[in-house]
Amino acid sequence: MSDELLQRVTYLEEEVERLKNQLRMNNGCREEDDVNKKTTSEPLDGQTESKPGVTISSKKTKKHSKQRPFDFSSHPRRHVALRIAYLGWEYQGFAVQENTDKTVEARLFEALLKTRLIQDRQTSNYQRCGRTDKGVSAFSQVITIDLRSSLFSPGLGVTLPDKTPSGTYPKTGTPAKNSAPAPGSELEYLKMLNRVLPQDIRALDWAPAADGFSARFDCQSRTYRYYFPRGPLDVELMAEAAQRFVGTHDFRNVCKMDVGNGVLQFQRTILAATIRPFEENTSGNPEDPQAPHDPNDPYELFIFEIKGLAFLYHQVRCMMALLLLIGQKLESPEIINQLLDVGSNPRKPQYSMAVDFPLVLYGCDFPGLAWQGGGAELHCASAALQQQWARSAVETHVYRGMLRGLEAMGAESSKSCWLVEGSRMKNYKPLLERPCCESLEARIEHFVKRGRLERDDGENGGEAVHRGKRSKHFHDSAQPSTTKLN
Amino acid sequence: MSDELLQRVTYLEEEVERLKNQLRMNNGCREEDDVNKKTTSEPLDGQTESKPGVTISSKKTKKHSKQRPFDFSSHPRRHVALRIAYLGWEYQGFAVQENTDKTVEARLFEALLKTRLIQDRQTSNYQRCGRTDKGVSAFSQVITIDLRSSLFSPGLGVTLPDKTPSGTYPKTGTPAKNSAPAPGSELEYLKMLNRVLPQDIRALDWAPAADGFSARFDCQSRTYRYYFPRGPLDVELMAEAAQRFVGTHDFRNVCKMDVGNGVLQFQRTILAATIRPFEENTSGNPEDPQAPHDPNDPYELFIFEIKGLAFLYHQVRCMMALLLLIGQKLESPEIINQLLDVGSNPRKPQYSMAVDFPLVLYGCDFPGLAWQGGGAELHCASAALQQQWARSAVETHVYRGMLRGLEAMGAESSKSCWLVEGSRMKNYKPLLERPCCESLEARIEHFVKRGRLERDDGENGGEAVHRGKRSKHFHDSAQPSTTKLN
Repeated sequence: MSDELLQRVTYLEEEVERLKNQLRMNNGCREEDDVNKKTTSEPLDGQTESKPGVTISSKKTKKHSKQRPFDFSSHPRRHVALRIAYLGWEYQGFAVQENTDKTVEARLFEALLKTRLIQDRQTSNYQRCGRTDKGVSAFSQVITIDLRSSLFSPGLGVTLPDKTPSGTYPKTGTPAKNSAPAPGSELEYLKMLNRVLPQDIRALDWAPAADGFSARFDCQSRTYRYYFPRGPLDVELMAEAAQRFVGTHDFRNVCKMDVGNGVLQFQRTILAATIRPFEENTSGNPEDPQAPHDPNDPYELFIFEIKGLAFLYHQVRCMMALLLLIGQKLESPEIINQLLDVGSNPRKPQYSMAVDFPLVLYGCDFPGLAWQGGGAELHCASAALQQQWARSAVETHVYRGMLRGLEAMGAESSKSCWLVEGSRMKNYKPLLERPCCESLEARIEHFVKRGRLERDDGENGGEAVHRGKRSKHFHDSAQPSTTKLN
Repeated sequence: MSDELLQRVTYLEEEVERLKNQLRMNNGCREEDDVNKKTTSEPLDGQTESKPGVTISSKKTKKHSKQRPFDFSSHPRRHVALRIAYLGWEYQGFAVQENTDKTVEARLFEALLKTRLIQDRQTSNYQRCGRTDKGVSAFSQVITIDLRSSLFSPGLGVTLPDKTPSGTYPKTGTPAKNSAPAPGSELEYLKMLNRVLPQDIRALDWAPAADGFSARFDCQSRTYRYYFPRGPLDVELMAEAAQRFVGTHDFRNVCKMDVGNGVLQFQRTILAATIRPFEENTSGNPEDPQAPHDPNDPYELFIFEIKGLAFLYHQVRCMMALLLLIGQKLESPEIINQLLDVGSNPRKPQYSMAVDFPLVLYGCDFPGLAWQGGGAELHCASAALQQQWARSAVETHVYRGMLRGLEAMGAESSKSCWLVEGSRMKNYKPLLERPCCESLEARIEHFVKRGRLERDDGENGGEAVHRGKRSKHFHDSAQPSTTKLN
């Protein structure tokens, strides 16, 4: 009896194991990557501690066919800036996350490792200019990083390997096919990366950088663009309202406060905020009757462009949300001034930020970098993008063609903002009459209680200063912050 | 020991069961739907035999909660025309297929059955104007069908139920909420259907029709539109070339021959074939320097519009393929005349048809039908479509914005047609030098041998006539054919 039972137990244990394996497989291979997902995550407001953890490369080698060991120490290194563009619609954001590998950074590091341009993330001296959220794209995301170099002579950003006892540089072995640069010239970074990156992420340009140059701290300004159709919006009113954002203000009511990550002060500087038609040449000329441009074409596309030193979490999308309410005449432009007046309005009314897909991190300004030029890589990127544009534009016109047909049949145009579902006009509640989110002070208290923040009461009655427990940095307005998630 | 083992066995058995259930759930619930996918399929050229088989309604009732039995015979019936619009990108075509239920017709019949506007497809006297292929959309697909009516008095197309012995019409029971029309007015067909149809299929209009009126045989003309960007194409040359299609020609070299389905003659009449900009008002005025329109803007969208009595299988897409080759200057416009000259060119050169997603069955002409007008349904359809357009237009402009940026960085525009991948210019082989498909005669012979076609040799040396074995119809040019798949 016992023998039979033992056999039964053994059989069942194997069956359980088999089913568990199958479940694991059916849930995709992604779970193997879970171990890899614990990578450094940086708090938003500039704390630079690095976390110990599993290096990506050692885990990744399991997934690839056996790679020859590569001796990085015999190669020169070079500190460079890389300019990256990506369509963010299919990604869970730029920054690596624990619960998914569908991030732009994850793909970037896969490419950097596959091409052996870096040994691993932790030792690559990696900095990024900013982070973009799920669904948000970038034309100009800049990172700085130390890449393998082919220059055995001094150059900007180059670190040479140690010489051998005989006084020469180590041999680096036979270069892989198609990657040997002309003597005296650098590796073709863009070409190497674009060959292995997914189509919706492109390396557009690179620049050598002096040691210590940082994508995060040396960025002089960042520019975002938000695309939207006129629909029923009063775009001129929106453009006037947008001006009210310019200058240095406390934007706590125009962002999602991220106290838990150590963001405690909300003063930011906006250098420019404009709204203009996408097609500037067809702005129309009212004095010229021959120019047949419809000045109120609901199908005309506009750009909200905003340039700032640094941005808070979701700041641009909150700004856009306010502008859309103003454009729908649900709020007046004064609401912006009121929300920036944190003395009178210390707590943010509850309102949704604008949707993600129209937002693009369009420009990052780094004076002093000598961009090398994308060359052939730009033409390839352009050709691929033209095909994607063509497909998208054709679909847009299929919709538009049917809309024209419906208009001809007597259909009326929708009165609510076309970017969002549902009508907001029925039962619209003005912002200043809505319930508010917690105040900054309450949020701080919340984290102080949980031991996440320390409070230093000011000496001699000066203002209390808080700091995250994981950081030695004090937070004050003089310190530049990184671009927050938008 | 045995007790512990027994407990272990019990525990493991439960674990196995739990894991199996989880596997089943993870593999999805779709397998239950497979039973429902066997529906009728009709050959292309109008053979109207009905297939015996499971009616859709009896299978469908399993999926729904128990429905009260519905006595169709006590309701009036009405012969009507319905105008349907749909975005075909997510469907496997309009016509029902055996191996998938992801067709427009399948959804249409689900809606007609769910609303109890018909009892089943076989007895609904259903006719369709045409069929569109996978990926192809329609703004004006028309069907004729007998629907349940609420009119108990004579009206156009109305068939009254038999009176009861007491001389009155049968009671039809309590109407479902929200579907009781005002006394003397018809059921709100469009509203009822749109409530249950998927968002990408809309009922836009309806018209009462005399008994015998057929969407298939009473259609006077059909109009297609194909949207495309200029890119590097010579659009003026394409427009001139398109004219050569007008008239009555043998289009066997400009379609996919479908002899197996009984299509044996390829003469068709094209009433109009034009190419024009989508935005006709901005055609530009070269004499007016203030009109800043770029006459060669590669990003300008155009429409190829073609109107004909009836079309062959893939005819429009083959026509477009030729026009695209001409636009790329890979062929001259004369190629059209040459391919329509079946005496000189009896066999079709191998070439791919144009892609599906830009094609729309835009109009179907039925003189004499009194369309009732879509009313509120049109406004709803318009509002929904505006949101879809907005999303698509924003994405198009994100691409366009990046392309502008790349141009500013020095990228050159792609020289090959933007609608297709890959460059066609390298190693381009002129059409008349390519291998050819089988001739019509060879295809006929092929099917005669397989017993699918009968040949009647002409009497007194007249021309042989063929007919499909499943049809009593003779095929000759006098008989209008249905719109074929495009």
